[in-house]
Amino acid sequence: MRIREMTITPVAFRDPPLLNATGVHEPWALRSIVEVTTEDGITGLGESYGDAAHLERLHAAAHELIGVKADAHHALYRRVAASVGTAVVTDQHGLTGGGSNSKTVDAVFSPFEVACLDIRGKATGRRVADLLGGPVRDAVPYSAYLFYKWASHPGAADDRFGPALDPDGIVAQARLLIEEYGFTSLKLKGGVFPPEQEAEAVHALYDAFPDLPLRIDPNAAWTPPTSIHIGRQLAGVLEYLEDPAPGIEGMAEVAAEVPMPLATNMAVVTHEHLPPAIAHRAIGVLLMDHHYWGGLLKSTQVAALCATFGIGLSMHSNSHLGISLAAMTHLAAAIPNLDHSCDTHTPWQDGQDVIAPGALRFTGGAVPLPPGPGLGVELDRDALAVMHEQYEKCGIRRRDDTAYMRSFRPDFQPKRGHW
Amino acid sequence: MRIREMTITPVAFRDPPLLNATGVHEPWALRSIVEVTTEDGITGLGESYGDAAHLERLHAAAHELIGVKADAHHALYRRVAASVGTAVVTDQHGLTGGGSNSKTVDAVFSPFEVACLDIRGKATGRRVADLLGGPVRDAVPYSAYLFYKWASHPGAADDRFGPALDPDGIVAQARLLIEEYGFTSLKLKGGVFPPEQEAEAVHALYDAFPDLPLRIDPNAAWTPPTSIHIGRQLAGVLEYLEDPAPGIEGMAEVAAEVPMPLATNMAVVTHEHLPPAIAHRAIGVLLMDHHYWGGLLKSTQVAALCATFGIGLSMHSNSHLGISLAAMTHLAAAIPNLDHSCDTHTPWQDGQDVIAPGALRFTGGAVPLPPGPGLGVELDRDALAVMHEQYEKCGIRRRDDTAYMRSFRPDFQPKRGHW
Repeated sequence: MRIREMTITPVAFRDPPLLNATGVHEPWALRSIVEVTTEDGITGLGESYGDAAHLERLHAAAHELIGVKADAHHALYRRVAASVGTAVVTDQHGLTGGGSNSKTVDAVFSPFEVACLDIRGKATGRRVADLLGGPVRDAVPYSAYLFYKWASHPGAADDRFGPALDPDGIVAQARLLIEEYGFTSLKLKGGVFPPEQEAEAVHALYDAFPDLPLRIDPNAAWTPPTSIHIGRQLAGVLEYLEDPAPGIEGMAEVAAEVPMPLATNMAVVTHEHLPPAIAHRAIGVLLMDHHYWGGLLKSTQVAALCATFGIGLSMHSNSHLGISLAAMTHLAAAIPNLDHSCDTHTPWQDGQDVIAPGALRFTGGAVPLPPGPGLGVELDRDALAVMHEQYEKCGIRRRDDTAYMRSFRPDFQPKRGHW
Repeated sequence: MRIREMTITPVAFRDPPLLNATGVHEPWALRSIVEVTTEDGITGLGESYGDAAHLERLHAAAHELIGVKADAHHALYRRVAASVGTAVVTDQHGLTGGGSNSKTVDAVFSPFEVACLDIRGKATGRRVADLLGGPVRDAVPYSAYLFYKWASHPGAADDRFGPALDPDGIVAQARLLIEEYGFTSLKLKGGVFPPEQEAEAVHALYDAFPDLPLRIDPNAAWTPPTSIHIGRQLAGVLEYLEDPAPGIEGMAEVAAEVPMPLATNMAVVTHEHLPPAIAHRAIGVLLMDHHYWGGLLKSTQVAALCATFGIGLSMHSNSHLGISLAAMTHLAAAIPNLDHSCDTHTPWQDGQDVIAPGALRFTGGAVPLPPGPGLGVELDRDALAVMHEQYEKCGIRRRDDTAYMRSFRPDFQPKRGHW
């Protein structure tokens, strides 16, 4: 089961103009598709970020992994760590917290680990979820991920989702996503408009869907006092309040004063953030993301830690394709203490994918665990070729929502502790 | 890979009169040998405590596990938890900390989980260590476990280890165990004599073996002030000081005032002890024990938590046989942050075992990881039959070091925060 070969293919897919605290999604989202093949000819799949600097690190790590056994988790990790060295990478888009060396290693390791689990599952006829302790649920519930958005990328025709720039637009978007996917909980990406205006949108969602759990995520665009004010205003309305203010200290200040749990994928994004966050009671819910928590096995360990400390669990998402959705679904299926619906950008990818259709589907807002073996998904090589060509042609080499926004609004400033 | 059949065999083996804070080891030590067989005829092995009440809980749980898949970790755990119900069991001998429901469930679950990992390894041609992330070391170092002891059980002939009731006796014992096993670190079980006297024995060990890491474990027989006094006296001599005083609070009080890390297998013995122990900085080293931390996979999760919080790792041992030693070795081999030699009672079992000879051996104080598949050990059915007969005849049904000691010294009182 030694690794013989690695292929890393950068891809691009169309992305709508989704607004957030740092700017607006560009017309193309980037990902990397990792294929790991063993000496006995089994290929496993992984998916990660597509930024040029990350691709370079993936290639460097891949080179070091040739010849290592696909189930030698610790050995693979050490090789990746050695390849990353002392690099500290902070995401360019500013939406997944600060950088650290451990987070950098974890992010580079992740797609290889997922691919190796896929291999192990295929080699033994087991699902990845079985390798993680076995599923505790047959389907994983996801949340409708609502975004303020323009009707179209400037200069292009309107996309089919339409504009969402006020409470009515957000409610209409929620209605569309619920109709198409059956979602049973709703998350609003905030940090775009003044907080009171976004709180109005949450109230509008509550009025329209009184039975659905609600969340808002301003990506740390608010100050602690604003977060406390809005948090109190939304008492009884929100399931949790996600990353209202920056940093562990800011979150702790807010957590002590609002009635709902605070969730994060920004203040606590790597192992060394957990001790201070726990000591300061900064968070009530951790949004795991195997793409930067070191893959699936390490994510189950973080989940176990959260169970020990009484921290709730949900799951974070960046724009992604089907390999990531499969990995997220296997992971979430195998975590007993996952107690909130997961995030996913899947609706915004609107049918574009690198995997063959049929393996993943939404029913009642949940993705049934694919039967496997492994991740249970296979590459659609034609689709992969098209998406790789799109990558070659699109001209984007790293995600930069701020620069794209500034191409239309030169005075735009990313919001961090702004309001 | 569904479980078809369970066999639980209680066994007894001869144990020397080892002294500790609660009394003295009885002439027979009890264990239970668990065999789990799947529908496709693969049998996995586990080993656990042999006390009657524990055996009863093992039988009740075993009944509930028939038909469950051997790799359905979470499903198996839930069945065991349901079977244990709200029971809270405190060990009778008082040497592994307080009881709790979670610890009770974890202790009942453990041998079944180990047996299922053995099955999974055998089914796929992998070692148990491979199923836990792969070995990071080829051999696991163990520590010489030194005990004050009588020359013999009263009324019996002297055993070959001889008496050890003063510093010279302890040094002689260390010499014997090092000669036979090659140990490169030493642990003295204390709590038997007044602390100053035991500190003298540690100094004698230090003089005799200046290069070997040393530990003493009085099993919480000391008060915090005594612990601080002795801890300071042994500055530069001890690698760590194990369970000097009772409870998380007592340990925290000592930890703040002594120069070496405190280790524990008494103050922190289940998940709910970790948050307060961490908040109060009570411990520097956790002595894992898969027999009560819920098996091997859950132990790796506890190990990951310790890495996150900068807590060192070693391993605890009760009197055990070869199945446990194999499981401990696979676990320790697969934990990157295990940074101290593990404890084992193996020398005191003095060749008695239920497993076929040859799979496990000590070289330079370390046990080379058996090549597997699974745990890499097989039952010796003749030896098992003999040990089961010993169980039937020995008359002991639960470990009780205190009652046995009182049969010779009626006024004996267990020591807890005594000195």
